[in-house]
Amino acid sequence: MKIIIDGMGGDYAPQAIVKGAVKAAAEIDETIVIVGPEELIRNCLNENNYSGSNIEIVNATEVISNNEPPAMAIRRKKDSTIVKGMNMVKNGEGDVFISGGSTGALLSGGLTTIGRIKGIRRPAIAAWFPKLNGKGTTLLLDCGASVEPKPEYLLQNGIMGSIFVNAVKGVDSPDVRLLNIGAEEGKGDDLHKEAYKLLAASDINFNGNIEGRDVAETECDVVVTDGFSGNIFLKSSEGVALAIMNQFKSKLMDGILAKAGALLAYGKIKELKALFDYSDVGGAPILGLKGPVVKIHGNSKETEVYYAIHKAVPFVRNDVTGMIAKAINDNAALFQKDKTEEDN
Amino acid sequence: MKIIIDGMGGDYAPQAIVKGAVKAAAEIDETIVIVGPEELIRNCLNENNYSGSNIEIVNATEVISNNEPPAMAIRRKKDSTIVKGMNMVKNGEGDVFISGGSTGALLSGGLTTIGRIKGIRRPAIAAWFPKLNGKGTTLLLDCGASVEPKPEYLLQNGIMGSIFVNAVKGVDSPDVRLLNIGAEEGKGDDLHKEAYKLLAASDINFNGNIEGRDVAETECDVVVTDGFSGNIFLKSSEGVALAIMNQFKSKLMDGILAKAGALLAYGKIKELKALFDYSDVGGAPILGLKGPVVKIHGNSKETEVYYAIHKAVPFVRNDVTGMIAKAINDNAALFQKDKTEEDN
Repeated sequence: MKIIIDGMGGDYAPQAIVKGAVKAAAEIDETIVIVGPEELIRNCLNENNYSGSNIEIVNATEVISNNEPPAMAIRRKKDSTIVKGMNMVKNGEGDVFISGGSTGALLSGGLTTIGRIKGIRRPAIAAWFPKLNGKGTTLLLDCGASVEPKPEYLLQNGIMGSIFVNAVKGVDSPDVRLLNIGAEEGKGDDLHKEAYKLLAASDINFNGNIEGRDVAETECDVVVTDGFSGNIFLKSSEGVALAIMNQFKSKLMDGILAKAGALLAYGKIKELKALFDYSDVGGAPILGLKGPVVKIHGNSKETEVYYAIHKAVPFVRNDVTGMIAKAINDNAALFQKDKTEEDN
Repeated sequence: MKIIIDGMGGDYAPQAIVKGAVKAAAEIDETIVIVGPEELIRNCLNENNYSGSNIEIVNATEVISNNEPPAMAIRRKKDSTIVKGMNMVKNGEGDVFISGGSTGALLSGGLTTIGRIKGIRRPAIAAWFPKLNGKGTTLLLDCGASVEPKPEYLLQNGIMGSIFVNAVKGVDSPDVRLLNIGAEEGKGDDLHKEAYKLLAASDINFNGNIEGRDVAETECDVVVTDGFSGNIFLKSSEGVALAIMNQFKSKLMDGILAKAGALLAYGKIKELKALFDYSDVGGAPILGLKGPVVKIHGNSKETEVYYAIHKAVPFVRNDVTGMIAKAINDNAALFQKDKTEEDN
């Protein structure tokens, strides 16, 4: 297995990428290929005293930034880390591509270079949402890949999420919910009413609607959303959690009694903070492409990179892509409504 | 001024309603009319040793529950507290209707009994979102009144929110944002791209998109959303805040050191909790109707009722309804796109 990683993606590249790769390489048999300016990456490997044999470098001289129009960048920058890495997955020279670069470029490159699985209407970005009661994570998809959703996309998100969680976490028959503005069937707009029916008619373990306030503490494995409200959900949750932690910090550091109290409660406060530590989730897979792609956060450091490499292994080994292709084919009858759009 | 309140709306009615009304009545000159079963309400007033002269009772023998289909309930239960209260506003026998009853029934009753302001496409539920840095609140609308939104509705939400915040908080030229999945212009789906253009072309103080993660700590007065993602935003924020506070509580009560620490930091922890105390916001106005209606939470207690009555005064006194009617008329050129739907 060859795990390809974008050596220049993210705020702390290439240092964080190389450090994470070196740490992971010592623990796995798979080959890690870092795509980036060869000399720069090699120097970085040397600085980190790398002496193993399972890290390779593939030279790429260009970088796509977050500020350029994604589709044009993909077309023009043929020697960019993203285009080169994705081409390797497409051509079978690599099994998965991990990048902390521009989400737009990864989506655009994924569609034009690697391509959609036959029958998939829109790829989806799947993010892990941490349970705030400490009981693991829920996979939320789509989180922003598709902004003009149709009911069939939501059904496909449910199928893809279910397969992914089963493959990487070993959960049998993952519990799938639909993010909606009410718990009962029949709630929401036409999109969500129709998506509900499709999800209920499919062969996945669909357990109805879930409201925004219940995701943080409900035991479920997959939450299906449209890209717009999924993005709003994820970012608002993050915003509130950060704002509370900021208040928490400033209040407990304000005044001698509070400080003493905080000191005594230090261990517990640390546990509380750990609930918001996303660094070990392994990034967000872009599901629905013909080859595995994982987006890691732009501010990823060594730890995030290390886990993303580790978690990419079951993504590839369990052939999530092949399983999605099969499931979409098996459920094809549910996607007949608007065939003209399919594979266009 | 006559403030009409639903004596039977909410989990703690009629006790909480009567207690809140008695407390508020002692401080204001306005008449408070409690709508409900006359004897029940009168006994409740006596239990609370009410001896003033500005609380009246209007008899209503039926109650609309949260579980019945709203439109049918409004049609059939002519002697319900909601239908009677709304008819009083319609007929000029009251100036505002406050209720902790079914949101669906309030919306349905508002549309059929009181009716929309001329030119208003859809009424909106406006909720106060507390700034988690302690710096006041932001008005978020729509939070679920309308689930198949069009760009014009979002523009009207911006106009209505701006007028309401100006009227009840005295903010000059309130800072209005659009909840979207990216900060730059051109982000989001067609609905939000088009809404952006309309908001920018209007005469309100529109300052562009805001992302979900930034609402909790950004200084702005009004956040415009479609009913679906607004509802997702509000409930997910609430869910995360509650989950964190639950963790906070359980972690700090776990073990002797943490307990001692929590005791020392008690004052600060109390301050932290107060950030999430919504009880003084005065409920959520339903804007766009020909008369003021305020929805209070179903779990409202005396304090929420008391504040809702107090805050209803500037809602009426500043003629928010008349100001909205004028603003919609002044901006009419922006709503010409789909005139066939108007006032249908």
